[in-house]
Amino acid sequence: MKQSQGGQSSIQLPGGFWFSAATAGIKASGRPDLALIVCEPGTRAAAMFTSNRVVAAPLQVAKASLRVTRGAVRAVVVNSGNANCATGSPGYRGCRQVCQESAKIVGSRPQEIFPASTGIIGVPFPAAKIVAHLPELFRNSLATTDAAHAFSRAIMTTDTRPKVACGTFLVRDRQISILGIAKGSGMIHPQLATMLVYLLTDVSGTTTQLNLALKEASKRTFNCISVDGDTSTNDTALLLASGRSGVSLKEGGAGKRFQAVLLEVCNSLAQQIVADGEGVQHVIRLTVEQAKEFEEARQIAAAISHSLLVKTAWAGADPNWGRILAAIGSSGVAINPSRVNIYVGDQMVCRNGQAHPFDEKRAHDHLSQFRCDVRVQLSRGRASLQFHTTDLSAEYVRINADYST
Amino acid sequence: MKQSQGGQSSIQLPGGFWFSAATAGIKASGRPDLALIVCEPGTRAAAMFTSNRVVAAPLQVAKASLRVTRGAVRAVVVNSGNANCATGSPGYRGCRQVCQESAKIVGSRPQEIFPASTGIIGVPFPAAKIVAHLPELFRNSLATTDAAHAFSRAIMTTDTRPKVACGTFLVRDRQISILGIAKGSGMIHPQLATMLVYLLTDVSGTTTQLNLALKEASKRTFNCISVDGDTSTNDTALLLASGRSGVSLKEGGAGKRFQAVLLEVCNSLAQQIVADGEGVQHVIRLTVEQAKEFEEARQIAAAISHSLLVKTAWAGADPNWGRILAAIGSSGVAINPSRVNIYVGDQMVCRNGQAHPFDEKRAHDHLSQFRCDVRVQLSRGRASLQFHTTDLSAEYVRINADYST
Repeated sequence: MKQSQGGQSSIQLPGGFWFSAATAGIKASGRPDLALIVCEPGTRAAAMFTSNRVVAAPLQVAKASLRVTRGAVRAVVVNSGNANCATGSPGYRGCRQVCQESAKIVGSRPQEIFPASTGIIGVPFPAAKIVAHLPELFRNSLATTDAAHAFSRAIMTTDTRPKVACGTFLVRDRQISILGIAKGSGMIHPQLATMLVYLLTDVSGTTTQLNLALKEASKRTFNCISVDGDTSTNDTALLLASGRSGVSLKEGGAGKRFQAVLLEVCNSLAQQIVADGEGVQHVIRLTVEQAKEFEEARQIAAAISHSLLVKTAWAGADPNWGRILAAIGSSGVAINPSRVNIYVGDQMVCRNGQAHPFDEKRAHDHLSQFRCDVRVQLSRGRASLQFHTTDLSAEYVRINADYST
Repeated sequence: MKQSQGGQSSIQLPGGFWFSAATAGIKASGRPDLALIVCEPGTRAAAMFTSNRVVAAPLQVAKASLRVTRGAVRAVVVNSGNANCATGSPGYRGCRQVCQESAKIVGSRPQEIFPASTGIIGVPFPAAKIVAHLPELFRNSLATTDAAHAFSRAIMTTDTRPKVACGTFLVRDRQISILGIAKGSGMIHPQLATMLVYLLTDVSGTTTQLNLALKEASKRTFNCISVDGDTSTNDTALLLASGRSGVSLKEGGAGKRFQAVLLEVCNSLAQQIVADGEGVQHVIRLTVEQAKEFEEARQIAAAISHSLLVKTAWAGADPNWGRILAAIGSSGVAINPSRVNIYVGDQMVCRNGQAHPFDEKRAHDHLSQFRCDVRVQLSRGRASLQFHTTDLSAEYVRINADYST
């Protein structure tokens, strides 16, 4: 599995996709804010969207379009700098206009254009600016790693670096690639929060196969990360399969290997997103073991990772296990506190719900690293998971107290 | 309704209670850390405890004792500086020992002693230090406002000031007092989070009457505040009725007036707790209107007040209504975003889920005050509530990154 964080040569492009980026003047900074993927005819898509009841216009349009086309997508048009959320009918019409104009250029139905927006909420959607730059955007699209990297940068908002991962595998001596590109730093949370994820592959598959694969891969990756616990109105994960490799997911062994590589790509993107969280000083790999079931383990991991007292203790590299125990107790899961063990790094710090002697200096040193391990055992069953979260720094507060006005 | 924040003359002591404080050397600071209320024989109690699954030893002991005595309490013994939580059987035995020794002094059953602890979790409970100071503590107890204020200071942890409120009313020309004393600053959350509340009155009532009154008063006060969303292992609210006034709750009109004054006292304490939240720069009175029912309104208020993005926007006095709308959308309530209105101060900033023109300078000025008003209308029904919460400042992070080690 190869990861890339801006390097030009380390990714393997799947066949059947062309990339482009442009500057439409939406971002005040003057940085690129328009991004495009053109897909080979016949490309099939699977998508997941935010669970927030407040849903941005492009998500409403994309959901409706996928139902009409049964998963056919010819292009993905993303703008950054404006979320097109809480923008009413003008925002909805603007989004449809972008799809219509794009469809004319690419020669498809408007419903085969998959729109996305990320940025500030509640500001009128600058459809005219985007439409004016569409011809240039489509004209410049290329199937090169440079163009893919340009796409990855143009979808950024408060991200400090682009997020790219890829993996390949062989079937009948043919190489299949999965390329993942994502954005998201603040507001990251289980159930997909302000995160745009694009997963491109040259295998062929049905919409049903692709939906299952995306759901399965997201479960232990994008749904097991948290920076601040907020849930965005614009989260979208999109899996696109061009079929250009000539290999189908239904061929012997292809499906299983595809799922394994997809999981690795998603895991890499999820960890890149957490590591680029706003003001993050520490990334914590939180392992929850001996739960009755996966969802229970996730609920406990989420409660720990949303506790301000736990997150601020982590900011101070403080092995304060009492706050972790209290967060577990408030998770809603009927745990027995006297059967809970907690580890920091390789040391047990709480045994059966009570203090266990440990070397405080060593625990503090472990939590002073950028990547830290915290492990919780519940003595309830055999389910486990790994959850990636962060500390809460004064820097996070500064960034978010300054954002809009 | 009178409030007091340390003044000596503004409270009316209810008859039948004696107060005391001492320094047992539990707090490293050397400040008073032991506090006592002695109650007239015949005093009846009602109590509410944390909803956390991790429950500190004194709460376990107190719950069991109240069942045995059916609500009879002769003394309340509180220590600060150590939570006696996650301390195993030694902590439980230590708490029972404190009750036994106190009972010998006051001449009651051990179960008539109501214990409480607040402070750090997971550190061995210093029972010997407490027991050594009990004779002095009981000997010095007085029915004076000075002694009551000393009690209010000795139960403090990270509080910067004591929290006291009182109210009185007349029945048959007899004055009835309700005195409230509380502690709590960080970790305040609906469902009682690290908060100790003592409500003392000289009316007489049955345990059932007192429990109903406490539950009703808590619903719109202690359960409608939030500083950081964490739920403590030690929260306790205790209502004690000495009966010394000779007036009973079952007398005509007494019950209703008692409830009204109790609500005022609880409301004052709840607001004092929020205003003393760790690192608080702004207290936000969040009004949720037009909900289907009270619990739905509370769920939405809690979602808004737990959103880090909303809380950090408030820290910057930023009228960013998009974050509020997104928090409402993630509350789990099936709201229709296009029917939501949001106000900052007296200005509508979001109408039917979209931007509504407003004076940004005036909104910013309003949010720059210590006390701010934010109002949400849901167009779903007729239930409403007021919820008190705070911004999230870099100072909060600093305080909590430094606490234990």
